[in-house]
Amino acid sequence: MKQRLLSGAILIFLLAAVVFFNQSFPLALNIAVALISAFCIYELLRAIGFVKRLFISIPAITTAAIVPFVVHSEITFLVLCLYTGVFFLGLLAHHKDVSFSELAVIYSMVVIIPVAMRTLTDLRKLGGAHGMFYVLIAILAAWAADAGAFFVGTFLGKHKLCPNISAKKTVEGAIGGVIINIGIMLLCGYLFSGVFYQGTREVNYLMMAIVGLVSGFTSILGDLSFSLIKRSCHIKDFSKIIPGHGGILDRFDSVIFTAPAILLLVSYFPLVVT
Amino acid sequence: MKQRLLSGAILIFLLAAVVFFNQSFPLALNIAVALISAFCIYELLRAIGFVKRLFISIPAITTAAIVPFVVHSEITFLVLCLYTGVFFLGLLAHHKDVSFSELAVIYSMVVIIPVAMRTLTDLRKLGGAHGMFYVLIAILAAWAADAGAFFVGTFLGKHKLCPNISAKKTVEGAIGGVIINIGIMLLCGYLFSGVFYQGTREVNYLMMAIVGLVSGFTSILGDLSFSLIKRSCHIKDFSKIIPGHGGILDRFDSVIFTAPAILLLVSYFPLVVT
Repeated sequence: MKQRLLSGAILIFLLAAVVFFNQSFPLALNIAVALISAFCIYELLRAIGFVKRLFISIPAITTAAIVPFVVHSEITFLVLCLYTGVFFLGLLAHHKDVSFSELAVIYSMVVIIPVAMRTLTDLRKLGGAHGMFYVLIAILAAWAADAGAFFVGTFLGKHKLCPNISAKKTVEGAIGGVIINIGIMLLCGYLFSGVFYQGTREVNYLMMAIVGLVSGFTSILGDLSFSLIKRSCHIKDFSKIIPGHGGILDRFDSVIFTAPAILLLVSYFPLVVT
Repeated sequence: MKQRLLSGAILIFLLAAVVFFNQSFPLALNIAVALISAFCIYELLRAIGFVKRLFISIPAITTAAIVPFVVHSEITFLVLCLYTGVFFLGLLAHHKDVSFSELAVIYSMVVIIPVAMRTLTDLRKLGGAHGMFYVLIAILAAWAADAGAFFVGTFLGKHKLCPNISAKKTVEGAIGGVIINIGIMLLCGYLFSGVFYQGTREVNYLMMAIVGLVSGFTSILGDLSFSLIKRSCHIKDFSKIIPGHGGILDRFDSVIFTAPAILLLVSYFPLVVT
């Protein structure tokens, strides 16, 4: 538990560094997102046992590292088309000992993970002058729901949510996580508007609460989905790089589902009103 | 063979009908593309044995039918995000008897097939007044390479291209298919510029030849890739709806790879110069 909290603090410190350097070095966010995406795909390839098949692993990791730097959707399309072509060439090259369904796991993750993580950079763009506030909200919403569910579940958990997928998750934890998440989002709104801007900027508290509610659900969905992916690879954690949390992908699974959902929400209803 | 030629003629007749009605009813192309995409996904679901799991099949087929009508890339992103969410909910609902790797085959095809087929409508938009010429070129290029490889291979084929994947394909057929394809593309350019427009419009013959060359390769890649997908599903054809050709997906597998490649080519180097 101590280890888990310490690692969490280090992650939040790294996140704060990216926020701090955003003005002077805006690419820091893209680099962080690219590194996370590429490392997630690396962990997945290692878990499935394909990391040494360079014709499969190099295009996958490269694509994951490039997508977070692409601004225009046409170029994203071009990159993903090229990856698709190379992916099928790789499948043809290895067709004797690899089946399509094994590689389809990798293909779908190379489409989902970098595109989903890239929405963090889209959120910064969408937020304009408050771009990093939007990014922070997306990451904190995913993590707060996770942490809230973990703590509420540990103390109050009685009914298992889905024992076959994730042994420790409880219904009480899930509900508690959503409620805590809404509270933390409202608090973030107050800190931003009332404390940081001293009331000169107004946030839409209803939207903050909706973001908390939605990300509470997407966070659980992300967590459970990646648990199923891990189970189909017969592993417990994707790696052990973050002590107490597992792999990068174990830590960012909820962000992968939450960030796109928040992007879609706030592109119609902004968080910052004035 | 007779059946194969007859079915081919009917397909070309249907294609001609879409071209003919393009002025008076431009949605005809979107409807045709949507029907083809949805039917391809239906065939795939049936081949893998998931068509009766409605929580999996309905979102997949619906997404395939919607994407060809979407104009803006933001809305495509929204549709694919919603599909991704519903897909993982379906996986959670069926997690006891379905593994992620089985469903990843469906997920990747729902991303690839409708998005790739939709590029036909993008080609029409890109071509402006000559939009349907661009669409025809993309479809004919895929089919001519297929047919060319089939005929050359039948008469001159000696060396197997990749006997483990597709027993009948030969190296001679593949090379002959590419050469015939380049010839047919140049002929199409002449028919468009010299015959239909009587020289008042100029095509870029070098680009026509490059399109023939590239689509010769993408057509083979598409054909072989879907052969591997079929083999991983333990089937010979996706269905028997087109006598002599197999399923819709058997007929459009090369178009799925060729249309995006041609879109990427001609968005930088137009086919019609004046």
